[in-house]
Amino acid sequence: MSYFQDIAPIRHEGPDSSNEFAYRHYDPDEIVLGKRMEDHLRLAVAYWHALAYEGGDPFGGRTFDRPWYGDDMAAARAKADAAFDLFRILNVPFFCFHDADVRPEGASFAESRRNLDEICDLFAERMQQTGTKLLWGTANMFSHRRWMAGAATNPDPEIFAYAAASVKACMDVTHRLDGQNYVLWGGREGYETLLNTDLGREAEQAGAFLSKVVDYKHKIGFKGAILIEPKPQEPAKHQYDFDVGTIYGFLKRFGLENEVKLNIEQGHAILAGHSFEHELALAGSLGLLGSIDMNRNDYQSGWDTDQFPNNVPEVALAYYEVLRAGGFTTGGTNFDARLRRQSLDPQDLVLSHVGAIDICARGLKAAAAMLEDGGLERMRAERYQGWDGDAARAMLTREPLETIAERVERVGLDPQPRSGRQERLENWVSRFV
Amino acid sequence: MSYFQDIAPIRHEGPDSSNEFAYRHYDPDEIVLGKRMEDHLRLAVAYWHALAYEGGDPFGGRTFDRPWYGDDMAAARAKADAAFDLFRILNVPFFCFHDADVRPEGASFAESRRNLDEICDLFAERMQQTGTKLLWGTANMFSHRRWMAGAATNPDPEIFAYAAASVKACMDVTHRLDGQNYVLWGGREGYETLLNTDLGREAEQAGAFLSKVVDYKHKIGFKGAILIEPKPQEPAKHQYDFDVGTIYGFLKRFGLENEVKLNIEQGHAILAGHSFEHELALAGSLGLLGSIDMNRNDYQSGWDTDQFPNNVPEVALAYYEVLRAGGFTTGGTNFDARLRRQSLDPQDLVLSHVGAIDICARGLKAAAAMLEDGGLERMRAERYQGWDGDAARAMLTREPLETIAERVERVGLDPQPRSGRQERLENWVSRFV
Amino acid sequence: MSYFQDIAPIRHEGPDSSNEFAYRHYDPDEIVLGKRMEDHLRLAVAYWHALAYEGGDPFGGRTFDRPWYGDDMAAARAKADAAFDLFRILNVPFFCFHDADVRPEGASFAESRRNLDEICDLFAERMQQTGTKLLWGTANMFSHRRWMAGAATNPDPEIFAYAAASVKACMDVTHRLDGQNYVLWGGREGYETLLNTDLGREAEQAGAFLSKVVDYKHKIGFKGAILIEPKPQEPAKHQYDFDVGTIYGFLKRFGLENEVKLNIEQGHAILAGHSFEHELALAGSLGLLGSIDMNRNDYQSGWDTDQFPNNVPEVALAYYEVLRAGGFTTGGTNFDARLRRQSLDPQDLVLSHVGAIDICARGLKAAAAMLEDGGLERMRAERYQGWDGDAARAMLTREPLETIAERVERVGLDPQPRSGRQERLENWVSRFV
Amino acid sequence: MSYFQDIAPIRHEGPDSSNEFAYRHYDPDEIVLGKRMEDHLRLAVAYWHALAYEGGDPFGGRTFDRPWYGDDMAAARAKADAAFDLFRILNVPFFCFHDADVRPEGASFAESRRNLDEICDLFAERMQQTGTKLLWGTANMFSHRRWMAGAATNPDPEIFAYAAASVKACMDVTHRLDGQNYVLWGGREGYETLLNTDLGREAEQAGAFLSKVVDYKHKIGFKGAILIEPKPQEPAKHQYDFDVGTIYGFLKRFGLENEVKLNIEQGHAILAGHSFEHELALAGSLGLLGSIDMNRNDYQSGWDTDQFPNNVPEVALAYYEVLRAGGFTTGGTNFDARLRRQSLDPQDLVLSHVGAIDICARGLKAAAAMLEDGGLERMRAERYQGWDGDAARAMLTREPLETIAERVERVGLDPQPRSGRQERLENWVSRFV
Repeated sequence: MSYFQDIAPIRHEGPDSSNEFAYRHYDPDEIVLGKRMEDHLRLAVAYWHALAYEGGDPFGGRTFDRPWYGDDMAAARAKADAAFDLFRILNVPFFCFHDADVRPEGASFAESRRNLDEICDLFAERMQQTGTKLLWGTANMFSHRRWMAGAATNPDPEIFAYAAASVKACMDVTHRLDGQNYVLWGGREGYETLLNTDLGREAEQAGAFLSKVVDYKHKIGFKGAILIEPKPQEPAKHQYDFDVGTIYGFLKRFGLENEVKLNIEQGHAILAGHSFEHELALAGSLGLLGSIDMNRNDYQSGWDTDQFPNNVPEVALAYYEVLRAGGFTTGGTNFDARLRRQSLDPQDLVLSHVGAIDICARGLKAAAAMLEDGGLERMRAERYQGWDGDAARAMLTREPLETIAERVERVGLDPQPRSGRQERLENWVSRFV
Repeated sequence: MSYFQDIAPIRHEGPDSSNEFAYRHYDPDEIVLGKRMEDHLRLAVAYWHALAYEGGDPFGGRTFDRPWYGDDMAAARAKADAAFDLFRILNVPFFCFHDADVRPEGASFAESRRNLDEICDLFAERMQQTGTKLLWGTANMFSHRRWMAGAATNPDPEIFAYAAASVKACMDVTHRLDGQNYVLWGGREGYETLLNTDLGREAEQAGAFLSKVVDYKHKIGFKGAILIEPKPQEPAKHQYDFDVGTIYGFLKRFGLENEVKLNIEQGHAILAGHSFEHELALAGSLGLLGSIDMNRNDYQSGWDTDQFPNNVPEVALAYYEVLRAGGFTTGGTNFDARLRRQSLDPQDLVLSHVGAIDICARGLKAAAAMLEDGGLERMRAERYQGWDGDAARAMLTREPLETIAERVERVGLDPQPRSGRQERLENWVSRFV
Repeated sequence: MSYFQDIAPIRHEGPDSSNEFAYRHYDPDEIVLGKRMEDHLRLAVAYWHALAYEGGDPFGGRTFDRPWYGDDMAAARAKADAAFDLFRILNVPFFCFHDADVRPEGASFAESRRNLDEICDLFAERMQQTGTKLLWGTANMFSHRRWMAGAATNPDPEIFAYAAASVKACMDVTHRLDGQNYVLWGGREGYETLLNTDLGREAEQAGAFLSKVVDYKHKIGFKGAILIEPKPQEPAKHQYDFDVGTIYGFLKRFGLENEVKLNIEQGHAILAGHSFEHELALAGSLGLLGSIDMNRNDYQSGWDTDQFPNNVPEVALAYYEVLRAGGFTTGGTNFDARLRRQSLDPQDLVLSHVGAIDICARGLKAAAAMLEDGGLERMRAERYQGWDGDAARAMLTREPLETIAERVERVGLDPQPRSGRQERLENWVSRFV
Repeated sequence: MSYFQDIAPIRHEGPDSSNEFAYRHYDPDEIVLGKRMEDHLRLAVAYWHALAYEGGDPFGGRTFDRPWYGDDMAAARAKADAAFDLFRILNVPFFCFHDADVRPEGASFAESRRNLDEICDLFAERMQQTGTKLLWGTANMFSHRRWMAGAATNPDPEIFAYAAASVKACMDVTHRLDGQNYVLWGGREGYETLLNTDLGREAEQAGAFLSKVVDYKHKIGFKGAILIEPKPQEPAKHQYDFDVGTIYGFLKRFGLENEVKLNIEQGHAILAGHSFEHELALAGSLGLLGSIDMNRNDYQSGWDTDQFPNNVPEVALAYYEVLRAGGFTTGGTNFDARLRRQSLDPQDLVLSHVGAIDICARGLKAAAAMLEDGGLERMRAERYQGWDGDAARAMLTREPLETIAERVERVGLDPQPRSGRQERLENWVSRFV
């Protein structure tokens, strides 16, 4: 008997449907810019928020009541059954998980790993049956108390070792399940107080660790991308993978900029003081755009609220940057979004995803329409066209400061500003969203 | 007749003095860690805030009434006289300026440059007479409307050219005045809306520009450091030189990480979501720490409030990072701090600096005492000592993931967390501040 | 010859129009919930941002170049001509202004007042000719240096007196021009530092001042509403009229809660840590909702960015609260939104309003549709229905703590939580926006 | 055997002591402004953070390992033993607690209440033996899932009833233990989404609830103060008791402004966009200052970090406002501050309090010295002295707007601004901190 009882698989019924349990905009087979919508969005349910979150927050404990809660393998199997049931109802192509979401912690590392392997056998079977695929796997190296002072950047080398073993185990199962990517989120890689921290030392540890991960990927022939997920803080006061710009510097420092890409989350961008589209555009311009975590942050809250998206104009600007960067290859759209802790019912879990998926579909279609129209790109090209001339390019690439300065005085250069046309551009966008 | 009338030069009178117009802690000749206090702090008055700021804010105009306000060379000369009068009263060794602070804008670039040259002749004379030195010079490429869409990163190549000429002119006078550094703050290098912006293109422009600046420095034999000043936003919605981590990535991208250092400001660190000591420690660990702008931000305001420092515990932690990184070489402590707009009187201008200088002196002495005691460094070393063993180093540098993972399982590794001792460390710091 | 040259009056062309200079959604005569759209929205152009703003920001001066800039009456008359030209092109029913927007400051208060009177004669004539009406007038008591430490709350009673005279003069012309409201925004009523401030004293001054304003309104028979505009800070570090909740307390303290209403701005709500709809709903529930300033704040900036609205889902939630509270009576929708400083062209000024007006129209229609459907109100009523029973009402109004406590133990009460259904409600909203 | 093993009671050893386990500044018997330091500060250990917090955060579980963790009465008794042991070591006069900190939740309300009564019997005994007193008691109405949508403001009247019973039970034991105050913190009184919330209805519930609490206080003859603790959000998106100004309005609305005072926390002030001293000064000016929660917030984090204070200048400004308001009567200084989750050791728990207590002692002594010197109050009085004249008072209290305006024109009033002297005042403060 399904936890979701009588909730039928969600079908596309079109924008006029008033059926809560229908897609009004998401139609997997609709062709957008020459590709199926499903193949654009590559939607993935997040095992942790959907299945493992219990409704707690810093001021209160569990509010949800799911039959699969528990600490043993039986509970883990029941959880997996519910998960694939949910995937079926939602009709999404992908899921993703942390090791700690899917298996009970064992009494030893070896037992934890065996538990993971065993659950992944079950996953393999269910994936085979249902066609659901794995967008990415990752190791949770932040919840257990051993990670409290970091994983790769821990002052204790034994914990570095434990982290290495954890990542290897997760990469192995991700590879086995034909995962499209492997993700690293360094929730504890950072510090609580600078007073006890050696930034230089910890950066060296992080660089060495990531290099080993990349080496291992090549060794086992994993074809997916290695992705780092930026976040500026929380749980740590300072997290090393602060934002896209910071990680780029880190990758350059260790020569990994062609080996690693990014998994970018709206809420994390906001916490770092950026818009989501900024982080996506920056990653795109640096060749680092891998995948996205599509949640939203409450703009009036100072922590990661991880909510399902509900604002089409924002989501459209995000997908616009994804499409401009060429669309997803190994990456996709992961719902790193969780139910509010008062949303107790099975229906809430389903409807949250249904609403979010429709918002993504609307956002994608608006983004595609903007790209097809081409207005924004034309206006952008026009703004920079002065740089397309040979003299301008020569100045940029070849002329030294003094030559340019001499010409400024000689010709009495007095350049006049031109309108940036921001409101006009925003009006143009409003036509599509 | 001096604007500051009967205010006598400020002298050190010791901590028990109740004379407002005395230093209670700043004694230039006091030896701290084997060096004169003056040579540690290398204090510099900022021409712009001290002399050029008129008391305006976004909701109101000029409140100050200074005899040197005006747009011609006579006013500029009067301002210079007042400036050197102020330096004399405060007895600080350095000053710093933007071109636009010291000379009137001319009708053409050539006239602006001649105005600058002429004022710098006056500066040279006064510096000769008084012994005051130049900490750094810089070009203001943000106030005039021509810069509204950027200087080096402008969509218009003519403005790039104008910027090149402006920097060259400022570098020339900085070099002539034996300036210790040349600073670049990219207040308009960023964007107001991503909709009209090509991030990739603008980054290329910024990289090319900075490379030209570095080349020119070598060509003219300027021995000072080139410094970039990070700030995340304001005036722009997004500023490219967001923070230390971002600039490091930019420098690596263009191969300039050994050519350029940073000028770090407390208020800008705060706006970027960091503590000042974080930015200093990070820069120190990357070898990029050049100079500091010692102001403070109001923690309850979301913009750069540029206030004189008044909190010793904070300032002490900042100087601790400076001392740990080896102290200043070409850099120093610049007061990028401005009077509140209600502080109308000449006394306010003097007293603001007096108070701030004393805070810096107390901070420095506390930092030095902490370093001499060594407690913090001992506790830090102890925390990481596990990494000092050969096996740990070998794991870090040589062992692949699978070797480490195999050992974790084989020995049944189960590392236990150890206290981070944050409160104990904070208590230790409190003994010194 | 019009500054706006050949820009024809903006007409409604329907959603499929690709004409930049057309309304696609705003049709003044369209009936929404039984009322003309124009009568719902009551749109007003703000004289200050549209005509008086020159493009400056804290780091740079004027960027715009308007023929009416200047400090004399001729310039003020030219500005008024341009203003009414803009109102005509936009076809909005209202405008609003500060005294300082429309007249040059005189050499004395009397001259300033005469200048104001004279310009308002011109306004009266133009209003007569065009049918444009005045939504509200207000006195600018923040830009001139005399206000730097407050108007009504100034430590100097002479400035209190000057403020009283200023408000009286503005109320007089507002009354004469048949203004629908009179607004007070206390940009300098607050403090820069608590160290020099007597909160109690200043609150007494503010209370006395507002009471005088209310008395004067009744004396002259002004029928419009007196509105206070909340803002938490900027320019002041702390502004007394922090937010809706704070002002309610202030009004209660001085017995003015039935005499004064609020003019609520999106950007100010954001700065105070609230959503716009929160402030509107709170004001509605307290009977204080008067009028709105429809701009938006950049969520990644910590100051008031005062931008034209561009996000329909947000605007729809705002109008939903306005409609729930009964819609506007004397109030309306004022564009307290200004051009970006790079938007130099006359077209930018027109298009910014065109886009914003269309966003408002879409938001209003979505809000009306949500209200007509009634789903949200039904779900809300259902959630609280337990309180509609007699026993629950009796408990609330009559039973003491100990009676309730006794019953809890006696019946072994063990209430179970019910889903808050947040995502479901958000999905419902998404159907309309 | 004590959990704190061989840690001897902390004694005052003076500022030069380098003993970590000594007070360097806190000397209970030192006379400050004519009163013992202990009687000024009225320090209280918070049961929850000191004893009940397990080291969890939103991304990780328990890190601490205390022998008294558990869910039964035996664990609760062991915890109480450890608590009084800690109080003895620290030699603080007070403690405070929530019901949920001290007793296990029962299977029914009645059992929970009996558990509470039983533990309070033990408290009474220990208090008798040791002289430790109760600063305040409170009911935890936020952790259990029943409170997820509020206590007094819940849409379900049964939960209102349960809340009433909970508060009554806690007030009863607080009264029995001779508590000095009873505190209400409405962590769940607010909303997660406005979409499902009726602000007006919930305010009525909150008002009725608080009125019942006040009535009950009088009925049982409880002499302590009823205190509300402001916080703007977290856990809720919006919390009704947002800040001091908002609560004042709420109290006025329900006629409770003479019955209820406030318990003000630094971290909550920061989250609301205020400095701690602002909230204290405002409460003082409104006659609402009751007690303080002395923690600090990390200024770079957007949530309540609840850390032990470590910055004397900040703490001194806070106590200055307390002393200006007449000092504590029933209130005191509660450490609503918790260990960092990496601070695992018993020593950390002791040392965190030792350091914080010394910071409070230094802050108090600095505040007292500032008040004794009187400089700040003199400068403040001087700033407002214009208002002390009869004419100014008459204008404020009696003259209508038109009379004042007439005089402004008649005498040609042209008031000139005077320096606000902010930096000078800050320098003055720096002499004491």
